[in-house]
Amino acid sequence: MISKEFYGILLIMTDGQYIKKAISLAKKGQGRTSPNPMVGALLVKKGRIISEGYHKKAGTPHAEAIAIDKAGPAAEGSTLYVSLEPCCHKDKRTPPCTEKIISAGIKKVVISMEDPNPKVSGKGIEVLRRAGIEVSAGLLEEKAVELNEYYIKHIRTGLPFVVLKAAITLDGRIATPDGESKWITGEKARRAVHGLRGNVDAIMTAIGTVRADDPRLTCRIKGRPSPVRVILDPRLEINPDANVLTCPPRTLIVTAKAGKTEKKKLLRQRGMEFIEHEGKRADLPALMKTLGSMGIISVLVEGGSSLNASCLESGIVDKVMFFTAPKIIGGRDAIPVVGGDVSRSLSGAHRIVKTRMRRFGEDFLIEGYVQKNN
Amino acid sequence: MISKEFYGILLIMTDGQYIKKAISLAKKGQGRTSPNPMVGALLVKKGRIISEGYHKKAGTPHAEAIAIDKAGPAAEGSTLYVSLEPCCHKDKRTPPCTEKIISAGIKKVVISMEDPNPKVSGKGIEVLRRAGIEVSAGLLEEKAVELNEYYIKHIRTGLPFVVLKAAITLDGRIATPDGESKWITGEKARRAVHGLRGNVDAIMTAIGTVRADDPRLTCRIKGRPSPVRVILDPRLEINPDANVLTCPPRTLIVTAKAGKTEKKKLLRQRGMEFIEHEGKRADLPALMKTLGSMGIISVLVEGGSSLNASCLESGIVDKVMFFTAPKIIGGRDAIPVVGGDVSRSLSGAHRIVKTRMRRFGEDFLIEGYVQKNN
Repeated sequence: MISKEFYGILLIMTDGQYIKKAISLAKKGQGRTSPNPMVGALLVKKGRIISEGYHKKAGTPHAEAIAIDKAGPAAEGSTLYVSLEPCCHKDKRTPPCTEKIISAGIKKVVISMEDPNPKVSGKGIEVLRRAGIEVSAGLLEEKAVELNEYYIKHIRTGLPFVVLKAAITLDGRIATPDGESKWITGEKARRAVHGLRGNVDAIMTAIGTVRADDPRLTCRIKGRPSPVRVILDPRLEINPDANVLTCPPRTLIVTAKAGKTEKKKLLRQRGMEFIEHEGKRADLPALMKTLGSMGIISVLVEGGSSLNASCLESGIVDKVMFFTAPKIIGGRDAIPVVGGDVSRSLSGAHRIVKTRMRRFGEDFLIEGYVQKNN
Repeated sequence: MISKEFYGILLIMTDGQYIKKAISLAKKGQGRTSPNPMVGALLVKKGRIISEGYHKKAGTPHAEAIAIDKAGPAAEGSTLYVSLEPCCHKDKRTPPCTEKIISAGIKKVVISMEDPNPKVSGKGIEVLRRAGIEVSAGLLEEKAVELNEYYIKHIRTGLPFVVLKAAITLDGRIATPDGESKWITGEKARRAVHGLRGNVDAIMTAIGTVRADDPRLTCRIKGRPSPVRVILDPRLEINPDANVLTCPPRTLIVTAKAGKTEKKKLLRQRGMEFIEHEGKRADLPALMKTLGSMGIISVLVEGGSSLNASCLESGIVDKVMFFTAPKIIGGRDAIPVVGGDVSRSLSGAHRIVKTRMRRFGEDFLIEGYVQKNN
């Protein structure tokens, strides 16, 4: 056997391979960097990686800074590979990375994608070039975009990226007519859902699901924070003993402004927060605006048939993830994954693009992006 | 470039590779051998394939006979690789292959699967061994079983192998509430369905689908025969001008014994055949028995929500094939792929095993076998 180190010395990696490596370093910060993007960086000198870094958490050093500090004086004359354009603004807790790159004497910077943050967006590249550093950008950009899809949508629109997740049977049902839904998918798919919860800022569901399943909606993976819970409950019918109200973390209840003053007061005393709306039902696009302005960059919808329909119809959904079990329950009264009053024509159907399939034990995940009709 | 021939001489293939080759030769007969199995064979001598053969059509020579005839005297001392146990009975139009193998002087026979036909089933192997030929069986058996799943079920049970096919949306619908279903899937998936039609002996549908879509249910691939059409129409409501009654090939109408004497007579004059049943509805397992006894070894169900449900509930379905379009139509009134009155519990759901996914353009096929609860 030839050792890994031997290969490391022998083989010169391509720029693409280094960028891939930077992206996989970035992923190590998944679920902890919000509202910042995930970023990975590495320094290469004479065909060898001399240091690596990734952004671990908002408020802590950037990937580039970590890699440069680790390399010390060796950074001079090296090439920096980074998954996102280095920042150049002072409008935050850490100093701009461009300054650090320039003063470290780095001679070349390879960037996967420009930072869509208007405070950076090409300006970081400009600063580096003006300092005489050779800069290239755009390598494996698609992968870098996917990595930070939550961040990118939020920084561009102020809205969170919305993922609609459901566990369905092969015939598209999420429950029997009696509401039985535990469990449609198996162990592995359910573990994947917990992983997903650990990557988003908020989970949204509706009172119907709370009543039917009394879920906790937490991420049960060690070391991963649970997301904020957003409960749509226009008439504030929630049972005060519901799991979402009695176990951590933060819970936001979206309800009508009018009425239930006493119940609201009691729940507020117990730490619940409210987002109140005029009229009988929450306006979902407006709610997304509110959540986005609170710094929530991603929302996972884990609702029932009606909420799924409302979310799709209101246009807030960016991505669907259907964990599909190889089971058929049948019957015209079984609960469909997307219910509601509106049924689209075939030509007007929601189109899901860039679909992908993955197996989780005997189940499989079908995921893709909702095509926006601009 | 090294030529293919050069590789042919240079590389010694393994038994597994030769059997794989025999199976792919067998597939060339797909859709034409019924009620016989598909069989492929090849002769190997000194590490070289000296001849090949496959069964082209019922009533024509067997794969082994073709390969042996092609090789001529060179067959002596060679090894025969064959996807199915050679026949040893005289109960058919062609002489037994075992005799031919013995008299050709073949020294070794490698078989993928034993023939489940009780007239052969191990007896072919026995005859060869008694003649001093070295025989091994069971190599890549799973592949050989899948290749001839229609034949195997029919020879074992007298019943046809039933495939339930549907074109569905990502949310499990086959039509909008208004019945719009053209087209859910794209060009490539639809072409695959025509290929499927070319591989089965019969297509079954119900009057509801005939009325809604007026399909022809033919195989529109050149050189491939169209299957027999089986139309479930208990009250004989079919429009005499329906495509299934006016274009070839053979059409069987399954209807109630009582009533509509005049219409039956007229349709009989036009070449339609009838399978009549007592009572208001056809008994599907009994119907399968009838079709099986007619030599129909495979049935493709292309029905609607109710027929799909009845077929699944009656236990006749062996395999499901859902061509899935990346579209969501939603709404509680859109037509589900499996409707009917019966909705199963999660623990009692029809379980689909050995699932497989394939892409057809932007659509994908999810297929698998219905687990039988014996």
